[in-house]
Amino acid sequence: MSELSVLVLHGPNLNLLGTREPEVYGSTTLEGINHSLEKEANRLQVTVSCLQSNHEGNLVDAIHNAVFKHRGIVINAGAYTHTSVAIRDAIAGVGIPTVEVHLSNIYRREQFRHHSFIAPVVIGQISGFGSNSYILGLQALVTYLRTEA
Amino acid sequence: MSELSVLVLHGPNLNLLGTREPEVYGSTTLEGINHSLEKEANRLQVTVSCLQSNHEGNLVDAIHNAVFKHRGIVINAGAYTHTSVAIRDAIAGVGIPTVEVHLSNIYRREQFRHHSFIAPVVIGQISGFGSNSYILGLQALVTYLRTEA
Amino acid sequence: MSELSVLVLHGPNLNLLGTREPEVYGSTTLEGINHSLEKEANRLQVTVSCLQSNHEGNLVDAIHNAVFKHRGIVINAGAYTHTSVAIRDAIAGVGIPTVEVHLSNIYRREQFRHHSFIAPVVIGQISGFGSNSYILGLQALVTYLRTEA
Amino acid sequence: MSELSVLVLHGPNLNLLGTREPEVYGSTTLEGINHSLEKEANRLQVTVSCLQSNHEGNLVDAIHNAVFKHRGIVINAGAYTHTSVAIRDAIAGVGIPTVEVHLSNIYRREQFRHHSFIAPVVIGQISGFGSNSYILGLQALVTYLRTEA
Amino acid sequence: MSELSVLVLHGPNLNLLGTREPEVYGSTTLEGINHSLEKEANRLQVTVSCLQSNHEGNLVDAIHNAVFKHRGIVINAGAYTHTSVAIRDAIAGVGIPTVEVHLSNIYRREQFRHHSFIAPVVIGQISGFGSNSYILGLQALVTYLRTEA
Amino acid sequence: MSELSVLVLHGPNLNLLGTREPEVYGSTTLEGINHSLEKEANRLQVTVSCLQSNHEGNLVDAIHNAVFKHRGIVINAGAYTHTSVAIRDAIAGVGIPTVEVHLSNIYRREQFRHHSFIAPVVIGQISGFGSNSYILGLQALVTYLRTEA
Amino acid sequence: MSELSVLVLHGPNLNLLGTREPEVYGSTTLEGINHSLEKEANRLQVTVSCLQSNHEGNLVDAIHNAVFKHRGIVINAGAYTHTSVAIRDAIAGVGIPTVEVHLSNIYRREQFRHHSFIAPVVIGQISGFGSNSYILGLQALVTYLRTEA
Amino acid sequence: MSELSVLVLHGPNLNLLGTREPEVYGSTTLEGINHSLEKEANRLQVTVSCLQSNHEGNLVDAIHNAVFKHRGIVINAGAYTHTSVAIRDAIAGVGIPTVEVHLSNIYRREQFRHHSFIAPVVIGQISGFGSNSYILGLQALVTYLRTEA
Amino acid sequence: MSELSVLVLHGPNLNLLGTREPEVYGSTTLEGINHSLEKEANRLQVTVSCLQSNHEGNLVDAIHNAVFKHRGIVINAGAYTHTSVAIRDAIAGVGIPTVEVHLSNIYRREQFRHHSFIAPVVIGQISGFGSNSYILGLQALVTYLRTEA
Amino acid sequence: MSELSVLVLHGPNLNLLGTREPEVYGSTTLEGINHSLEKEANRLQVTVSCLQSNHEGNLVDAIHNAVFKHRGIVINAGAYTHTSVAIRDAIAGVGIPTVEVHLSNIYRREQFRHHSFIAPVVIGQISGFGSNSYILGLQALVTYLRTEA
Amino acid sequence: MSELSVLVLHGPNLNLLGTREPEVYGSTTLEGINHSLEKEANRLQVTVSCLQSNHEGNLVDAIHNAVFKHRGIVINAGAYTHTSVAIRDAIAGVGIPTVEVHLSNIYRREQFRHHSFIAPVVIGQISGFGSNSYILGLQALVTYLRTEA
Amino acid sequence: MSELSVLVLHGPNLNLLGTREPEVYGSTTLEGINHSLEKEANRLQVTVSCLQSNHEGNLVDAIHNAVFKHRGIVINAGAYTHTSVAIRDAIAGVGIPTVEVHLSNIYRREQFRHHSFIAPVVIGQISGFGSNSYILGLQALVTYLRTEA
Repeated sequence: MSELSVLVLHGPNLNLLGTREPEVYGSTTLEGINHSLEKEANRLQVTVSCLQSNHEGNLVDAIHNAVFKHRGIVINAGAYTHTSVAIRDAIAGVGIPTVEVHLSNIYRREQFRHHSFIAPVVIGQISGFGSNSYILGLQALVTYLRTEA
Repeated sequence: MSELSVLVLHGPNLNLLGTREPEVYGSTTLEGINHSLEKEANRLQVTVSCLQSNHEGNLVDAIHNAVFKHRGIVINAGAYTHTSVAIRDAIAGVGIPTVEVHLSNIYRREQFRHHSFIAPVVIGQISGFGSNSYILGLQALVTYLRTEA
Repeated sequence: MSELSVLVLHGPNLNLLGTREPEVYGSTTLEGINHSLEKEANRLQVTVSCLQSNHEGNLVDAIHNAVFKHRGIVINAGAYTHTSVAIRDAIAGVGIPTVEVHLSNIYRREQFRHHSFIAPVVIGQISGFGSNSYILGLQALVTYLRTEA
Repeated sequence: MSELSVLVLHGPNLNLLGTREPEVYGSTTLEGINHSLEKEANRLQVTVSCLQSNHEGNLVDAIHNAVFKHRGIVINAGAYTHTSVAIRDAIAGVGIPTVEVHLSNIYRREQFRHHSFIAPVVIGQISGFGSNSYILGLQALVTYLRTEA
Repeated sequence: MSELSVLVLHGPNLNLLGTREPEVYGSTTLEGINHSLEKEANRLQVTVSCLQSNHEGNLVDAIHNAVFKHRGIVINAGAYTHTSVAIRDAIAGVGIPTVEVHLSNIYRREQFRHHSFIAPVVIGQISGFGSNSYILGLQALVTYLRTEA
Repeated sequence: MSELSVLVLHGPNLNLLGTREPEVYGSTTLEGINHSLEKEANRLQVTVSCLQSNHEGNLVDAIHNAVFKHRGIVINAGAYTHTSVAIRDAIAGVGIPTVEVHLSNIYRREQFRHHSFIAPVVIGQISGFGSNSYILGLQALVTYLRTEA
Repeated sequence: MSELSVLVLHGPNLNLLGTREPEVYGSTTLEGINHSLEKEANRLQVTVSCLQSNHEGNLVDAIHNAVFKHRGIVINAGAYTHTSVAIRDAIAGVGIPTVEVHLSNIYRREQFRHHSFIAPVVIGQISGFGSNSYILGLQALVTYLRTEA
Repeated sequence: MSELSVLVLHGPNLNLLGTREPEVYGSTTLEGINHSLEKEANRLQVTVSCLQSNHEGNLVDAIHNAVFKHRGIVINAGAYTHTSVAIRDAIAGVGIPTVEVHLSNIYRREQFRHHSFIAPVVIGQISGFGSNSYILGLQALVTYLRTEA
Repeated sequence: MSELSVLVLHGPNLNLLGTREPEVYGSTTLEGINHSLEKEANRLQVTVSCLQSNHEGNLVDAIHNAVFKHRGIVINAGAYTHTSVAIRDAIAGVGIPTVEVHLSNIYRREQFRHHSFIAPVVIGQISGFGSNSYILGLQALVTYLRTEA
Repeated sequence: MSELSVLVLHGPNLNLLGTREPEVYGSTTLEGINHSLEKEANRLQVTVSCLQSNHEGNLVDAIHNAVFKHRGIVINAGAYTHTSVAIRDAIAGVGIPTVEVHLSNIYRREQFRHHSFIAPVVIGQISGFGSNSYILGLQALVTYLRTEA
Repeated sequence: MSELSVLVLHGPNLNLLGTREPEVYGSTTLEGINHSLEKEANRLQVTVSCLQSNHEGNLVDAIHNAVFKHRGIVINAGAYTHTSVAIRDAIAGVGIPTVEVHLSNIYRREQFRHHSFIAPVVIGQISGFGSNSYILGLQALVTYLRTEA
Repeated sequence: MSELSVLVLHGPNLNLLGTREPEVYGSTTLEGINHSLEKEANRLQVTVSCLQSNHEGNLVDAIHNAVFKHRGIVINAGAYTHTSVAIRDAIAGVGIPTVEVHLSNIYRREQFRHHSFIAPVVIGQISGFGSNSYILGLQALVTYLRTEA
């Protein structure tokens, strides 16, 4: 029985995964990550819907549309993490529990990647574990939804 | 006779109005605001066209498209107020008199909301009066267009 | 029947209006502004009392004296907007609903004029519409007092 | 025998005490504080003269006038603590030993209240003990004058 | 024989060229620039494809789509130069040699235009030569591709 | 078969857990967390050793002593996260794969808690999930050690 | 009858008092200060326990150990005032009313001594009165405990 | 024949001159300075009117009142140099040529004295020559008025 | 017919080219660059005079001496780009159209190399194309001189 | 009888005076200024030696060479005012009383011109009076040398 | 005859030397360094006592204990160089001549390692020469003690 | 046998040594320092060539000329330490091992002297030991050249 539906949002350039700067992001493709998430969702008895967009507005729209469809969100906002107040406001606006994940350890990279506009409005942040960041994020979210939300 | 046509632009997340963080934004919906604007436009003998988008690019496009259709713009750019140089350049580029409005008093909120990229290219800014900020903005714009522009 | 009395405070150098830097502040005199405010007050069925001072202490005193006489304040604190914590504390201290107005668009001017010590303790701020900023401020205040206060 | 005369200066808005933001400043009135100071002065065998003003210039004048009348000053410069170089220069100029006091713990409040222009020219600073800050300040000053000055 | 295909990307508001703030950007239209680029491409025996968009996401998509179609990119990201980490990451992600161009000398304009998120991931930057910046950018790119890439 | 031994380090004040500011840190005690970690370690077929200290030097010593005893470290350095270069250097010096965890979402708290001296030398960081941050951290570390280290 | 027990904590280097930089700290020894505090405690009918340590961790431990033994704390954290988040968190964590004292006027010294990590979590701060800062701090604390706590 | 009348304004604490911090300001009294200015005025065939005030508002008023009485202003705004936007705006507002003078070399003193709000609206600034700064300022002003104004 | 004479200025350390840090600056020597410039000048029917100096003052002198000899300047001020106000003022002072070039992409290097004192007074800037930056700079200058100057 | 010899130093680009940016620096040539200085020197019964150089090192050398030849220095270091620690150290090193002058009001110009490395080691600074700044500087220096030095 | 005794203090993580990050710190062990120091001390006819600790408090204690035992201190405070005001105050407090040494060139590393809290209270600083920094530091200290102290 | 030749460079104002600000730089002359260096060079069986210049360009030239003549450089760049990118680039460009020395402890002086442009490109830095800094620098360099270079 899967009572929980979770939206997984991938931000800009994540469609390049597996081809792009493998020394930074690893060799797994986005399809690979989505597949792992579905397997883990199955194990946790929840469902996941995955969506990638390079458009800030699409990500905002997707968060809005989640209101009656999903109980939680796992988001890797990619570059928009550091520049988008709109996505932050969308998450705060819909009030859906959200977990922020990053493939790379953003604190090891350029100074401007150390700041996340999204972090202050999410439950928590997981960064640095490659594609496992998503799996951990899904687990963290499901635990939160089943115990605290 | 209504010689003046005004474009009202609503930025990201404003479609959530009435449902989202009512302690910050009040309980009026965007439809409610648009309806009030139409009523006020009627009283002022002007016409208003309202448009909301979560996409920065759509807002830029809409400003461009206003060139031969509208004599003035009332804009609440929401989160893009603080991050969009593109919208600023669009307003400066088309040269249409514009008034910037905000529902909440942005100077009471987080530090990053105190800076507006748009403010230096508009006639003036009105913030903090809830949905009345729009009505005041429309009045300010119409007075400006009828006396100074 | 005019149940509402409003105090209008003009800060330093506003007595020079109409003679001083007309390319920044326009050609209307302070008397002209006060006259327009009285006319608008009449239309809104409220009363206004106008006071100008170049002395920070006088403005603080005037705010204190408003406690049992006025229901709201419209203030253009001029240069003290950017330097006076005392006026900010006076407004917060008396708890009278206040609207901040500016003739010029302060975000188009020197960097030090972009910061207002007063903004975080008022209902809202209106800047850039010349003498019309006062009229809009009075309307905003009256609407606020009649609906929310 | 009371050989020591002390000037107590209260800065802007302190006349509102007891009515204003009681959650920040407590419910004691300025008269109450002055009365407590007189009682304590009596116990310490000194005299106190208390003066409140909302005018920066008046406070500067009062510090100048203290030269041949008072041996020490207890000052709560209120908002001018954070903005007045003139009061700082007055204290440094007359060379009268001075103690700075604050009702609230200024380090718990807004960032701009953490800086005092006055602190570097006084003996010491006492903040956060409500009206007791004044009593402690008077004691500190008298001890200083009797042992070190 | 034209072995090299180059993508030319124009960012937000560049569709207004020739109509907008001519004292800053000159009177040439975007079509004019594209036409000049085609002529120059012909001379250099390469092909160019030009694309303008006001949408950050479209520009990111276009960079992704260039992977198997183009050998190099000339980009004037306009306002997104200063705010878009997403476009920076797209350029770095696809690994296509890119030249950044600007019509105006961005170092003569507002402080916020002096910083480019894109500059650290491109071969080089050319700014200030009006529409000639594009021609020089194309030449620079072609020389680079023929000698170093 | 448990081939992996993991050191869990708790920094200053974490011994107060369950009694201290429960609105920030929840009601679980440190013993409770250690117990959960042991259970999870059992499930993952690894062993954990837990150590808490309020002394920066002890934490440095413990990291040094881990060299021949442990394959990985999970650390919640508490307040030392933001002030200790010594712990950072210890982690970098011993070269043991380390995961940084935090009970609370440090990006929702005071500005000085947003910076971690430790983050740039660890695999990744997990913050905001209460005591579950530790469990997720242990899982992340074990996955890392079994697949990448 | 002495119902109140107070812990007095002296931070690093205060054991040097009376020998070290007398032009900054005066000639009183730490024993002298402790003796004066005991005398004053006697007068106030409270008891004091004094402890000095050069170890940040010891000070944190001492604050924790105070939980069931002391009703209030007077702390001069010395150099740790400016660098220790751990001591700040300990004070906030145990919830024991605390007064911060300093021998010298820290606002007359180097810039880095103007900031106290401890100030925002204590009742109030007293600085600049030499060893009398401790006596005043004890009085302030006792008054607070007898009237407000 | 004295066609030119010059207003000399002395800001806060300058009435203390000759008694106050002689190592910084020298031993000349304000009367001495005014007397020297009158003698120099006589030599230059102009008249001077001198005015000192500790009140920012009085200085603003005096600048306003100068409009039809004086052709130029020499101002030593003392502490208000560094904090008063109101005096700056008054000088800019009346449009009377003004010279800024300082007794001490303000660039040798505290950092906050290096910035003058007044400097950008005056003809020029003279600082560091003791009371001679005023004489030089008067000469500079008269030369300016006779040749350029 | 060569009506245009162009001065090419090479700043400090550029005489080391070809021997120095080839991974940053390439292996071309300064003579090689000058030779290429002469060839290109020939093609463009202009003349170039090249001068290298490690002395800031020599570069200033050379710019002054260009007044009646050259119609334009191509300058790679090397390290002085980031520290010399004197060269900036010389360029602005003589009013000769100037193009700034850099071998390396200065935005990929240390933070202090991102700022150019010269950029705001030149027509435009070209950086990152190795010795081709000079060729492009010469072309850009000649086009400018033939069409706009 | 002329007992005093004064060195007048002109920094970089001042040889362009009269030809360069007359709206900023006026139309007087350097020869004109030197001539006026000689006339004034004659009146004051001192001698002046004038020297201009675009080389920082020459200015340092000239200051050193002044040691046994001149009793005072008037310096307009031009662009080196803002960048040269070497000239500052030379002035401080030789210990010759020096007056700093500027033709333009440096506080009205770009932000980087507001800071002078030289100001803290000179007697005083005079800026904004065109060539009269030099005359005033010479007078100030001579008065200083005759009364205080 | 060895009249001079010198304390050598090694801060946190220096016990790892020879094993830790050899590309930064070299392959010499701490024992190796101490041995070299003893040999050099022998040559210089002084004695050295070496002590390493990872505890800030221990280093402070050791400095205090040096008062009657040692005439000088050579300190490599490691990570505490950048964070410890307590060690700075201990050095200033005991008044023992101290030399600061670093194995690596701290100005080549992360920004936060460029600042030393200790540097302003020591005789001098030596950094970048590997274990030879200690030998040079000992020589510098002994020369200082024999000639200047 | 002296196989090593070392260049010693003295920057601006060092020719004044022994006459200038002896409280900062001591009473030794530059000749005295050079003489000591020669003696020490003799002892170390190397040769030294000493050169002083007040001209940044001369120092750059001297570094270039060292390429085939010297194996190492000891440099006290004086004021240019803090302002010269050209000298930094020269040192990095020629690739000759260099040691940076300072007579005074630059970290005890003005803030702007704490930053060295040269430090990141040298082996190491020695500051604060008066003329002994040079002797230590020479020793450090020779040891480096004989063991590591």
